[in-house]
Amino acid sequence: MKARIHVMLKAGVLDPQGKAIAHALGSLGFKGVNEVRQGKVIDLDLAESDPARARDEVEQMCRQLLANTVIESYQIELRP
Amino acid sequence: MKARIHVMLKAGVLDPQGKAIAHALGSLGFKGVNEVRQGKVIDLDLAESDPARARDEVEQMCRQLLANTVIESYQIELRP
Repeated sequence: MKARIHVMLKAGVLDPQGKAIAHALGSLGFKGVNEVRQGKVIDLDLAESDPARARDEVEQMCRQLLANTVIESYQIELRP
Repeated sequence: MKARIHVMLKAGVLDPQGKAIAHALGSLGFKGVNEVRQGKVIDLDLAESDPARARDEVEQMCRQLLANTVIESYQIELRP
């Protein structure tokens, strides 16, 4: 089973990487970019084939390692 | 219009961040993680409302700034 996890800074948390990208896009002549947020995407290939157990396991991974839940939120997508 | 861009290392390019995550998950007792790849996700909020023009613009951004197309591939998703 494959899992894709998005880890983004929570709304309201300053995102300096996003700001830097927005600034660089402006310098390159791209107008009309209102906001940029940058996050991480993590693709896992899991041996577990049961969707419910896989989701539980990935939730644990996010809480323990992949996301800093004080400032980051995560979103899990599973596919077979 | 919103755009979400995934920038991942191409298959075959060594991903040390992914390897580090896989190793750390193993140390935490998570078994059955076959492979981990880490990439970037960039969320853009664009003033452009025409999907075709927005996609063209985002393609240009990816080629010029957001992805290093020698070693990275990108994927664009648009939503209104």
